[in-house]
Amino acid sequence: MSKIGIGVLGGGYMGKAHSVAMAAVGAVFDTALRPRLQMICASTPESAERYRKAYGFTQATGDWRTLVGNPDVEAIVIATPQETHRAIAEAAFALGKPVFCEKPLGASLEDSAAMVAAAQKSGVPNMVGFNYIRTPASQYARRLIAEGQIGDITWFRGEHTEDFYADPEKPTSWRTTGMANGTMGDLAPHMINASLGLIGPIAQVMGLVETVHETRPGGAVDNDDHAQMMCRFENGAMGQMYFSRIATGRKMGYAYEITGTKGAIRFDQEDQNALWFYRADDLEAERGFRKILTGPAHPDYEPFCQGPGHGTGYQDQIIIEARDFLRAIETGEHVWPTFEDGHEVNRIVAAVLASSQDGAWKNIEDF
Amino acid sequence: MSKIGIGVLGGGYMGKAHSVAMAAVGAVFDTALRPRLQMICASTPESAERYRKAYGFTQATGDWRTLVGNPDVEAIVIATPQETHRAIAEAAFALGKPVFCEKPLGASLEDSAAMVAAAQKSGVPNMVGFNYIRTPASQYARRLIAEGQIGDITWFRGEHTEDFYADPEKPTSWRTTGMANGTMGDLAPHMINASLGLIGPIAQVMGLVETVHETRPGGAVDNDDHAQMMCRFENGAMGQMYFSRIATGRKMGYAYEITGTKGAIRFDQEDQNALWFYRADDLEAERGFRKILTGPAHPDYEPFCQGPGHGTGYQDQIIIEARDFLRAIETGEHVWPTFEDGHEVNRIVAAVLASSQDGAWKNIEDF
Amino acid sequence: MSKIGIGVLGGGYMGKAHSVAMAAVGAVFDTALRPRLQMICASTPESAERYRKAYGFTQATGDWRTLVGNPDVEAIVIATPQETHRAIAEAAFALGKPVFCEKPLGASLEDSAAMVAAAQKSGVPNMVGFNYIRTPASQYARRLIAEGQIGDITWFRGEHTEDFYADPEKPTSWRTTGMANGTMGDLAPHMINASLGLIGPIAQVMGLVETVHETRPGGAVDNDDHAQMMCRFENGAMGQMYFSRIATGRKMGYAYEITGTKGAIRFDQEDQNALWFYRADDLEAERGFRKILTGPAHPDYEPFCQGPGHGTGYQDQIIIEARDFLRAIETGEHVWPTFEDGHEVNRIVAAVLASSQDGAWKNIEDF
Amino acid sequence: MSKIGIGVLGGGYMGKAHSVAMAAVGAVFDTALRPRLQMICASTPESAERYRKAYGFTQATGDWRTLVGNPDVEAIVIATPQETHRAIAEAAFALGKPVFCEKPLGASLEDSAAMVAAAQKSGVPNMVGFNYIRTPASQYARRLIAEGQIGDITWFRGEHTEDFYADPEKPTSWRTTGMANGTMGDLAPHMINASLGLIGPIAQVMGLVETVHETRPGGAVDNDDHAQMMCRFENGAMGQMYFSRIATGRKMGYAYEITGTKGAIRFDQEDQNALWFYRADDLEAERGFRKILTGPAHPDYEPFCQGPGHGTGYQDQIIIEARDFLRAIETGEHVWPTFEDGHEVNRIVAAVLASSQDGAWKNIEDF
Ligand SMILES: NC(=O)C1=CN([C@@H]2O[C@H](COP(=O)(O)OP(=O)(O)OC[C@H]3O[C@@H](n4cnc5c(N)ncnc54)[C@H](O)[C@@H]3O)[C@@H](O)[C@H]2O)C=CC1
Ligand SMILES: NC(=O)C1=CN([C@@H]2O[C@H](COP(=O)(O)OP(=O)(O)OC[C@H]3O[C@@H](n4cnc5c(N)ncnc54)[C@H](O)[C@@H]3O)[C@@H](O)[C@H]2O)C=CC1
Ligand SMILES: NC(=O)C1=CN([C@@H]2O[C@H](COP(=O)(O)OP(=O)(O)OC[C@H]3O[C@@H](n4cnc5c(N)ncnc54)[C@H](O)[C@@H]3O)[C@@H](O)[C@H]2O)C=CC1
Ligand SMILES: NC(=O)C1=CN([C@@H]2O[C@H](COP(=O)(O)OP(=O)(O)OC[C@H]3O[C@@H](n4cnc5c(N)ncnc54)[C@H](O)[C@@H]3O)[C@@H](O)[C@H]2O)C=CC1
Repeated sequence: MSKIGIGVLGGGYMGKAHSVAMAAVGAVFDTALRPRLQMICASTPESAERYRKAYGFTQATGDWRTLVGNPDVEAIVIATPQETHRAIAEAAFALGKPVFCEKPLGASLEDSAAMVAAAQKSGVPNMVGFNYIRTPASQYARRLIAEGQIGDITWFRGEHTEDFYADPEKPTSWRTTGMANGTMGDLAPHMINASLGLIGPIAQVMGLVETVHETRPGGAVDNDDHAQMMCRFENGAMGQMYFSRIATGRKMGYAYEITGTKGAIRFDQEDQNALWFYRADDLEAERGFRKILTGPAHPDYEPFCQGPGHGTGYQDQIIIEARDFLRAIETGEHVWPTFEDGHEVNRIVAAVLASSQDGAWKNIEDF
Repeated sequence: MSKIGIGVLGGGYMGKAHSVAMAAVGAVFDTALRPRLQMICASTPESAERYRKAYGFTQATGDWRTLVGNPDVEAIVIATPQETHRAIAEAAFALGKPVFCEKPLGASLEDSAAMVAAAQKSGVPNMVGFNYIRTPASQYARRLIAEGQIGDITWFRGEHTEDFYADPEKPTSWRTTGMANGTMGDLAPHMINASLGLIGPIAQVMGLVETVHETRPGGAVDNDDHAQMMCRFENGAMGQMYFSRIATGRKMGYAYEITGTKGAIRFDQEDQNALWFYRADDLEAERGFRKILTGPAHPDYEPFCQGPGHGTGYQDQIIIEARDFLRAIETGEHVWPTFEDGHEVNRIVAAVLASSQDGAWKNIEDF
Repeated sequence: MSKIGIGVLGGGYMGKAHSVAMAAVGAVFDTALRPRLQMICASTPESAERYRKAYGFTQATGDWRTLVGNPDVEAIVIATPQETHRAIAEAAFALGKPVFCEKPLGASLEDSAAMVAAAQKSGVPNMVGFNYIRTPASQYARRLIAEGQIGDITWFRGEHTEDFYADPEKPTSWRTTGMANGTMGDLAPHMINASLGLIGPIAQVMGLVETVHETRPGGAVDNDDHAQMMCRFENGAMGQMYFSRIATGRKMGYAYEITGTKGAIRFDQEDQNALWFYRADDLEAERGFRKILTGPAHPDYEPFCQGPGHGTGYQDQIIIEARDFLRAIETGEHVWPTFEDGHEVNRIVAAVLASSQDGAWKNIEDF
Repeated sequence: MSKIGIGVLGGGYMGKAHSVAMAAVGAVFDTALRPRLQMICASTPESAERYRKAYGFTQATGDWRTLVGNPDVEAIVIATPQETHRAIAEAAFALGKPVFCEKPLGASLEDSAAMVAAAQKSGVPNMVGFNYIRTPASQYARRLIAEGQIGDITWFRGEHTEDFYADPEKPTSWRTTGMANGTMGDLAPHMINASLGLIGPIAQVMGLVETVHETRPGGAVDNDDHAQMMCRFENGAMGQMYFSRIATGRKMGYAYEITGTKGAIRFDQEDQNALWFYRADDLEAERGFRKILTGPAHPDYEPFCQGPGHGTGYQDQIIIEARDFLRAIETGEHVWPTFEDGHEVNRIVAAVLASSQDGAWKNIEDF
């Protein structure tokens, strides 16, 4: 058991989540590498100092370069806005430091391509923060599919829907500016990544992307409120996805339905401890979707609780991520999803946006 | 209260349902016109005679012309396969007899166009059997939307999914032959009609239609197993629909989710007595989808039961249809959905099929 | 196929339901005996005449003796208040006419004892209207238990909860007077009967019965608002039941949970087309309650609809009852629950009331 | 912000949970007092050393007296079996050290009485580990009731059901010996405490307690498998509870239903992020249980996640407990539930057991 100095960039929503995760992960998973909360960075020295105290870091800084260059910082967690991801990651890779980066990977396809190149050049572990796919339920869904328990996949429906911009009277903010902060940039990547992890690569897409409320108190909105896409996976399965920040009533609508020739799976993150599983080979009169509650029989559940059905939550997903990032550092083996996977997601996002503009199907290989 | 002689064509799945409905509707709704089960027709005299006895008709015939021409038959219910709808309807209209026709309206766009023309020429009441939209829950959904309770509609997602052909080893049958019997022909019309009734006219569609299992024991399959479409409604709302006969685990997946600026509605026919309704103006801490159980406060519920939550079922939808058809005959006022509405649905089906072939958006007005 | 003249007493809530059922049952179940809606009786000639027209009977009367004595009335359906059940049933049995009686069986234990005696003396078919246990789902639950699919029963929890008297400002009515019209008299019998049908005879009970709102606009209330009981079944299983007419939010809370050594069953009438079934021998990771949607694989479903998950409703339960009553008449074989079973329920009700008064356990055999 | 040295007794199920909680709580809640994981104790020095490394403590010991007496240990968390609680707590209080003790409070009524006396004598903060009542959902339920949002409470139904002993072939263990480890001793306290927190003091109980499987592989079982109780709260509400370790299919069945004159609440820990709330004053047609997803608008949610519906889990409840224990130490103000509350629960348990033996109602004040 050896210590590793962690530097976290950003002390907001995700900066805090990763700080808590780094504080807890060792005790939860009995990891070989034990994080030392070395330094935290925010946009001002004052806020950084506040976060340092609150989360228990040793040092604070208002300049990300200071953090990246700090020799006591041995691994980097990027939890700042998408526009900042690239420069930070490139600097860290240049110093040979492993990087965990929040989704989406950079603010553009150009960003993520550069980040992949830098990651490959450095060869150090790198990972993207698609946390939702790490719930015990979704990990188990992946396993069921991989084992062929639902047969050949014929259909995938996914959504990532929330309603934080459902009210047309809610004012503009940085979230309503820049494609990287719109629904396709910000929310879609989670579910697109999930679809790749569950079903496999996507070959073609057709998109329809829209800004419903073009102005809000505060001015014009220049990114998208909701978007849909049809797709074809490389294995032949057909798919459909929907993303929205104006989905009135939906709080954490990260949900999917997967149909196979021998069974089906349904999941909704709003009840993240249940996976619904249908086996076509059950007796006809006894067939029905089973509401499986996650427990020690499912991936990464037991370290949180010995009792089935007792439930894990949002923060626990981030702790699982931290364990995976530490393991990648320790073993040198990459853990899915890497920057390459994050870039693959961005290519699909770009294809959907392009398709929406000219109304034509797009091949992912062209992006 | 006067009697009206009813002739039912077909004694199978829907022929029986309409016969039972005609036997029960008077007592349920205290209708002014009271059906007399006059004559039933099936493909052979023997089967027709069997149905006559079973359902309580006075006369039977193996020839639909006999039924249509029978002067004691004053109104016609067509519950035979789609290929037969047109000829029967045209003959009935020619004699000035009101016609209720099961969905879809005919076996092709040509059929339904001709049927609309015949209906208009005759001027007599005509109606199409989109029964699911007649549950108290879905009628209430329509009312909530019409009253503006969920504000402006931004998003509609619908599906009609079942799994009677999910097993790839299930042999071919008449259902696996002919576009009118595939998923777009047979299942899609229900949900497309629902979307029109709930949201309003559709302007444009983009489709993706597929035969997953191209051969089955018994030979080749020449119609579609599942299909999806994106659409734009005339009022600007964006929509998405999915139809499938291979949706493993889904039995009556007639389901929709509707998002508005002030609220949202969710419904799934597999629990047809519940409507989920979200009001954005509830207090923040108290906001959530309300599971409303249908009862006397909702349309057409009370005649079936004075107690809320006691529930109506499939057969009750057909009884509501019968009431509406009788009322149209009695008052001379058309009841939605008429043949024109059924034809509108067929135009959308045709546009989706065309779009799927060339991968381009289609305007409904071109069909 | 022969006709049988039916006389229905009462044209209200249940009088209507039975009239509709008698109009529809022949077509639904292709019964050997076909009901002829002969005569209906209500408390005045005027209301009776109104019901006659509405439901399609041949004759009407304001005097129940006229109906019972009418030679064209060959079988009797009692859907009048509990106070009237006994005299009507006795008169009918004296004339050798089969009797279907709504629950509860009479207004007191004395009534039901006398009714059983009269039934036994006459030897003609007799049946009590515990309709809810006749849903396909609850019939299937009974079958699963009888087949041993959930092993030995260790626990039963049942409830019958509604909220029609939840509002303390709702005025008094006949429902708030007389023990037969209180919660133990009116609602409890349904679930007690269900427990007997599902689990078997009850040996002992302990009750707690209460009038929460002792006065209401209009005056004093002299019967109970809600009640609970603990019980021991003869087979050793432990049980618990709750009954309420003040269960705010509950509309048709006829619900049960049954635990066995090998599995478990859960049901709630508010979603009457689903039965939840847990098999302990499923693989650990795949275990969960299966939401089984009723369909043709379940008892008495297919005559209503060929499609699984399409759903039956309240009225359909009454149609199933009508089929069973007709079958009993046709075959001469009694169909559960008979008057004896209705009386057994009343004995348990009496034991619960007695227990509530002195706070001691009661043996059912003493009642 | 000052540090406090924590000593945890026990490194198993709950010892780990509290260790993780102490590692994470500072960052989550920005607590004024910051835990320092000082010392952990287990039944052998070897296991203690293993836990020390895994959870990140400074010191380890196989002797609880060493831990309690360690001057660097300033507060004690007892997560050892019930038989050990009393001696440890008494020793800690004697040294003036605050004590958090896992439920149940000691192994008997005598134990908890002594522990209350010791706590009162010392005057230092003390608290019992009824974690489930600390979910945001259950805290919010308490608030809704306290604010009168559901009016006067008429009915409470609670259960704590799991199935870890449902299989009759599962061998005996320490769990099958000693009343403190049976269902009434081990599981019932959670829900009894919840009922007190939600509704208020209980006045009277009637119990029925049972060992279903009297022998198991390994020998005889001498404690109870399941138990039920009826009760009367001091405010007049009627209640019913059920506890089971043989509830096949139930994993975390900590569930309650509460009826009031103006509304109702339903909760099930298996979906711990949803609270179902019914308002009787909603419009009739719009009334239904609202499925409220917990979020920043609910107690203690936001520190875990800024997004509503993103969910908290089992471990988060323990973190909330840790925050409350630290706050009690910091402020010197007791936080519910204290040892007195834990003793109150034990008195009710004792009354239920006594009632089950002689079949008579018991007044809690007599215990
Ligand atoms: N995986 C998930 O569930 C979620 C991921 N995210 C992602 O996490 C990232 C951060 O988002 P939030 O935490 O929501 O943002 P936030 O606005 O809550 O916090 C951003 C933090 O970054 C700091 N920051 C901004 N610019 C900086 C700069 N140039 N140098 C140093 N610090 C800077 C700010 O001071 C602040 O502490 C984004 O990439 C976002 O897409 C956000 C929410 C959820
Ligand atoms: N609204 C709904 O929920 C449903 C609607 N349908 C529609 O109802 C119609 C009938 O379908 P099903 O009842 O499922 O078919 P079915 O195969 O169960 O019954 C068809 C009936 O039509 C009779 N028939 C066939 N050809 C005939 C002819 N040339 N002359 C006279 N009788 C003829 C047959 O003898 C049989 O009695 C179709 O248009 C179908 O799309 C079907 C099922 C559900
Ligand atoms: N199985 C079930 O789900 C239900 C059963 N019931 C039972 O059905 C029976 C009737 O209840 P409802 O239909 O709710 O009552 P209701 O008040 O709706 O109707 C009662 C009918 O009985 C008639 N009636 C009353 N006294 C009469 C007399 N002396 N002679 C002739 N007719 C008389 C009235 O005119 C009226 O038509 C009761 O025993 C009740 O417990 C009631 C509701 C549901
Ligand atoms: N709040 C909740 O949700 C739960 C509470 N509990 C309670 O937590 C307590 C501990 O239970 P578990 O963690 O399940 O037990 P466990 O068997 O998993 O762990 C018990 C620990 O106590 C240690 N221990 C036992 N005797 C000892 C002694 N004399 N001196 C020092 N260490 C000793 C053992 O070495 C072991 O590390 C019990 O009171 C139990 O009722 C248990 C499970 C859940």
